[in-house]
Amino acid sequence: MHHDCSFLDELDLEGSVSRGSSDRRNHASDFGTREGQAVEPDAVAFPESTADVSAILAAANERGVPVTPYAAGTGLEANATPVHGGVSLDITRMDAVLDIRPDDLQIDVEPGVIGEAINEAVAGRGLFFPPLPSSGSISTIGGMIATDASGQQTVKYGEVADWVLELEVVRADGTVLTVGSKAAKTSSGYNLLNLVIGSEGTLGVVTRATLQLAGRPEQIKGGRAVFPTLEAATEAISDVITSGVDVAKLELIDERTARMVNAYADVELPERPMTFVEFHANHGIDEEIDFYRAIVEAHDVAEFEIASGDEMAELWRAREEIAYASEEYDPDREIEGSGDVTVPIGRYPEMIAAVQSVAESYDLFIPCFGHAGDGNLHYGVFADHDDPEEVERVRAAHAEIVDRAIELGGTATGEHGIGVGKRKFLEREHGAAGVETMRAVKEALDPNGILNPGKVLPNANAQASASATDGGTNGRTNRK
Amino acid sequence: MHHDCSFLDELDLEGSVSRGSSDRRNHASDFGTREGQAVEPDAVAFPESTADVSAILAAANERGVPVTPYAAGTGLEANATPVHGGVSLDITRMDAVLDIRPDDLQIDVEPGVIGEAINEAVAGRGLFFPPLPSSGSISTIGGMIATDASGQQTVKYGEVADWVLELEVVRADGTVLTVGSKAAKTSSGYNLLNLVIGSEGTLGVVTRATLQLAGRPEQIKGGRAVFPTLEAATEAISDVITSGVDVAKLELIDERTARMVNAYADVELPERPMTFVEFHANHGIDEEIDFYRAIVEAHDVAEFEIASGDEMAELWRAREEIAYASEEYDPDREIEGSGDVTVPIGRYPEMIAAVQSVAESYDLFIPCFGHAGDGNLHYGVFADHDDPEEVERVRAAHAEIVDRAIELGGTATGEHGIGVGKRKFLEREHGAAGVETMRAVKEALDPNGILNPGKVLPNANAQASASATDGGTNGRTNRK
Repeated sequence: MHHDCSFLDELDLEGSVSRGSSDRRNHASDFGTREGQAVEPDAVAFPESTADVSAILAAANERGVPVTPYAAGTGLEANATPVHGGVSLDITRMDAVLDIRPDDLQIDVEPGVIGEAINEAVAGRGLFFPPLPSSGSISTIGGMIATDASGQQTVKYGEVADWVLELEVVRADGTVLTVGSKAAKTSSGYNLLNLVIGSEGTLGVVTRATLQLAGRPEQIKGGRAVFPTLEAATEAISDVITSGVDVAKLELIDERTARMVNAYADVELPERPMTFVEFHANHGIDEEIDFYRAIVEAHDVAEFEIASGDEMAELWRAREEIAYASEEYDPDREIEGSGDVTVPIGRYPEMIAAVQSVAESYDLFIPCFGHAGDGNLHYGVFADHDDPEEVERVRAAHAEIVDRAIELGGTATGEHGIGVGKRKFLEREHGAAGVETMRAVKEALDPNGILNPGKVLPNANAQASASATDGGTNGRTNRK
Repeated sequence: MHHDCSFLDELDLEGSVSRGSSDRRNHASDFGTREGQAVEPDAVAFPESTADVSAILAAANERGVPVTPYAAGTGLEANATPVHGGVSLDITRMDAVLDIRPDDLQIDVEPGVIGEAINEAVAGRGLFFPPLPSSGSISTIGGMIATDASGQQTVKYGEVADWVLELEVVRADGTVLTVGSKAAKTSSGYNLLNLVIGSEGTLGVVTRATLQLAGRPEQIKGGRAVFPTLEAATEAISDVITSGVDVAKLELIDERTARMVNAYADVELPERPMTFVEFHANHGIDEEIDFYRAIVEAHDVAEFEIASGDEMAELWRAREEIAYASEEYDPDREIEGSGDVTVPIGRYPEMIAAVQSVAESYDLFIPCFGHAGDGNLHYGVFADHDDPEEVERVRAAHAEIVDRAIELGGTATGEHGIGVGKRKFLEREHGAAGVETMRAVKEALDPNGILNPGKVLPNANAQASASATDGGTNGRTNRK
């Protein structure tokens, strides 16, 4: 669908607007865009201020033109690319660190700031921003807030939402408001802060964030535990969490992932299930490690190595290679889906076993890894897109895994968001009443439906909606 | 305003309905109801199931009859008592512990369960529910969720919202939905969970909660530090937090509060500012205490005592007596307002100084205490209600303190909620756009405005609203 975006030229913006084909192409896809899914925006706007964002939204809202916020494009569910054309609102020029208040453990930033830049800005004060996702060196804080991202350190420190205190948000009609509070705790009125966080730009556009920071721990150690079976590994994980071991990271990789990483990277991992662990403390770190060791030994750990500094980084390197290894592993196949189902920690062993069983019954290679300490499981499903039968088989396997997670009391997405790819699971997870309530909120805050349409919520009904053609039955767009 | 509630008799409820004068009177006031504020409901319903709550709401919604959820009545801002009559929905009979899943660190409860009963139910498994407020032995989990309560341990463990995973909620029209997820982390759709938490029963009624639990720490020690000046005490607090000392509780009381407690209880506190502190650890607790000690010594601490067990409890006892001491201290004066403003931790010393300055300029006795580690300040303002000049003076002082907190980047209410008493500050804190956005959400989820009307949101306008007579200008009802 094309939209007349000439109104952008009439606005008095600090930033700029492009209709150039390369800008439009660059904003048509992101890390989560699958084969044949890319939809170009009609224009790309590069706002440089809150006033710019407000002016663009107010004008687009009057005209019913879709606006899809875009930043680093690292989302895995096509969260930030258009489904219905319109304006791509690229906020990467709004990347200033506005203020650092070490006495309050706070920093104010614009949404286009890269995650690691926050850490760099405060490192000199001995502070850090704990919940960065693994993509933190390339993704923006705006994107992390949009999906309520989390990462390896979430098991100790919590998710992005736990570290966002206050946001400046522009509503669909251009109204600017501040949600949340710079106080560490508030019960003042409705919690609009957490409503905006994770809403993927469908309820408002974030233009400024106040984040909470933490002091860097004085001691860091970590390492790797190799297990004889996947069952032993996952039961050890569950036991570590319920025993209250103070782990700062607790990651799992299965033997398939180990094989994949060995094939790609210059490492020689034992091709067995293993966990990667890290500890942060101001003192007493060795006692905590002993606590951990006692539990993994009770689960027949085969190898357990702990180190610090470069040696620890070397032990961990295999974990960091997974994303690249997945992309390169099989030249005939592309990632068709990237899962992040999350289940209650006691159900984690069952969930991992369920994925293995799905892989076998569909005859697929499905490597598993993830933020095990949160019950969060990552897995890749790969398909040869020249083989329609395989594509269908892979999609069915992916759906079965998600269904199983929901049956176990879990969620379709722990941290990547719904985007386009997971819309089909929303009602399964939240029920018709849950989806209808989310839709009521969306209609209240964006009555013209201009903010990132075609995301998060499934289509209301095929007749009434302009988005009727976007392939709602399998949650994927088939547009070219 | 009276409402015909005879429709309740037509419902096929498991629970019961009363129109008896003592039930109506008992549901007309709570801990936060001020002189002359009590409004009786026309009927009190005692639902015993989700189906009961759904049937009552559906019927009330059709007829436009207000429904005000009520539980233990321990709210401090008249959160749970009617402003416009109608039905008081007393959920205290829904007090079952439904399921305990130690492998998931989870418990499912009905909303009428008393906080301490949760701890008792899981103590045998070595678990506890960390964010209980000081009222935890008398207040219900439903009330804690309604106000997003917090407490002494929030400085280490977070607030109630951080420990609520999933809620069953009945919407105004009787629709039952589940919000949140039993997974520790989710990015699936809009965060309706945190929208309901803290909404004081104005967006829906909670009928079941899944809570996260934690393992009890193996070591607990705590004690008291006495400071030469209030400035030294508050600067030490700010320094402890920014240095990352792992405190489980960090409370302040000023010399006025110490004097008040001495007058009431059988203790002999030094009449100087002091902090109460507690540490939780699995090991290394003494090293953490040394870390704390070094900081308070740098702030000229006069006395510092640490103990465990009964001896610790004795050191802490004065802190626990404050609520009773406040009520009894001055027989001629009643509490007119109970403040819980919260500011960024670096601003805490200024906030405390501001209250002292307000007390002096208004010639009032305003004792301060509170959850200092969160930047949360409690204070009482007392008035002789036979002296209208004093009442006005006290209200003006109270308002000036709240305004000052908001100016410092803080919030009008850290944990008690808006209720009736803080409505006048909502726009000051969130701006017109913030309040208008909250109102849009309210209208989307409760279009007939039956859920706890007259709370949280200020009146839309005096002409259009049935609530025009509830004394919106000073945020207090003057009805008899």
